[in-house]
Amino acid sequence: MHPLLGQFKLFVSMDKPLIFITNDDGFQAKGLEALIEIARPLGRVVVVAPEVAQSGMSHAITISSPLYLRKIKQEPDLEIYTCSGTPVDCVKMAFDSIMQERPALALSGINHGSNSAVSVIYSGTMGAASECSFYNIPSIGFSLLNPREDADFTAAQHYASIIIGRVLNTDDISIPMCLNVNIPDLPKEEIQGIRLCRQNKGYWREEFEKRFDPRGREYYWPTGIFLNQEEHATDTDEYALNNGYVSIVPMQVDMTDYNQLDQMYAWKF
Amino acid sequence: MHPLLGQFKLFVSMDKPLIFITNDDGFQAKGLEALIEIARPLGRVVVVAPEVAQSGMSHAITISSPLYLRKIKQEPDLEIYTCSGTPVDCVKMAFDSIMQERPALALSGINHGSNSAVSVIYSGTMGAASECSFYNIPSIGFSLLNPREDADFTAAQHYASIIIGRVLNTDDISIPMCLNVNIPDLPKEEIQGIRLCRQNKGYWREEFEKRFDPRGREYYWPTGIFLNQEEHATDTDEYALNNGYVSIVPMQVDMTDYNQLDQMYAWKF
Repeated sequence: MHPLLGQFKLFVSMDKPLIFITNDDGFQAKGLEALIEIARPLGRVVVVAPEVAQSGMSHAITISSPLYLRKIKQEPDLEIYTCSGTPVDCVKMAFDSIMQERPALALSGINHGSNSAVSVIYSGTMGAASECSFYNIPSIGFSLLNPREDADFTAAQHYASIIIGRVLNTDDISIPMCLNVNIPDLPKEEIQGIRLCRQNKGYWREEFEKRFDPRGREYYWPTGIFLNQEEHATDTDEYALNNGYVSIVPMQVDMTDYNQLDQMYAWKF
Repeated sequence: MHPLLGQFKLFVSMDKPLIFITNDDGFQAKGLEALIEIARPLGRVVVVAPEVAQSGMSHAITISSPLYLRKIKQEPDLEIYTCSGTPVDCVKMAFDSIMQERPALALSGINHGSNSAVSVIYSGTMGAASECSFYNIPSIGFSLLNPREDADFTAAQHYASIIIGRVLNTDDISIPMCLNVNIPDLPKEEIQGIRLCRQNKGYWREEFEKRFDPRGREYYWPTGIFLNQEEHATDTDEYALNNGYVSIVPMQVDMTDYNQLDQMYAWKF
């Protein structure tokens, strides 16, 4: 084992497991507060969240500037830090610099807005969650299908609690595990349940609205439209969400296109 | 077909195909110049590159601020624009706002530095290349294993030309296609050839060097170490590069972990 992989003390089963939390909407987001609220009764919580909102930051890392870290809260079983970098920077600082013990679970969110289908690759929430899974910790990213700052996270908290409990209480989890959980923006009693899904195929197209700034320079606001490439599939996250279910898509980061690879062997370079 | 997918005139075979180019090191990078130089004899070239360096920006998009676009060069068969956003923003503006015709090929790079193995998910070069492939255009990202600003791109240009020629002259390409090409930092005559590969498994760990700024605040410089999880595999990009070969990994963006999905069906939510 590489020495850096062995840097954590092995997690020993305790009354209070260590739980790591981050997000991409920044440390002041209501969704982060909602996640801390449900995680706190389950263990000791360490939060490292971005200083400012970092939506759409994907798996970005800071390379050319240094990172600042600030501890903003220290209570029994709760520490909150802010980091000047991206969501993935928060994870790297947390795991490689702040936490001296290996957490039992890593959580990201609850995001204000959907991260289903191909949105997973643009998502700072899921960039952070997948980075956590690189440390061989079960990790879960949660997103509520409501982008508003004042969204109601009650139903999301209910389902997040069920899924977190399930992961914490399952002994034979196959590692690495990273779950992309999306929750419909519905009252709890209207949600139909939880579905395991695959990522729906499709892409975003932008329409750029041109405006002029006070100095007369043109600028553009992007407004995306999702093109669903498999509207009739019933085993995807889009289908589940459109039918009132919470969707869970396990994700991984081997991007190899194995079908293309097979076909290209004929090219004989 | 969705109306937005049909926005381009169909590409009609012409003497001079349209080629789109972007990168993540910014419009002034030597690697971009090297790529333009080899693409120009092959067709009409449109470049949209970031105004400033955007290394490590992954698949990030700009959400909360508008984008500025600037045309900086117009010559016969060459247009160069800069965009204030990320590499993926450059692609979206180019395809959804600038180009009125569907290009035959999209290129990204040549990146100053490696994008092999898991680096593909942090890479702005490959974020942009994969976004191009969402428009059903064969796309290729090139990276030279030398991060210096003044790196020598001679060998990279030679192999990039071979691969571009191969893609342009292959009739039955399976779409979407996105190729992640890495080139060893060796003189041309020492490169052993080209290998088709899969993405090597492994992760980056950071060691944060703590310093103090002139105002006495702590800050951190991250310095990464790659943990190769399959040092003995011979079909990966890491192996090819370590043995003096140019590596080609076809990539795609379905992040679903199908093995994990199979195992989780037993959970019965």
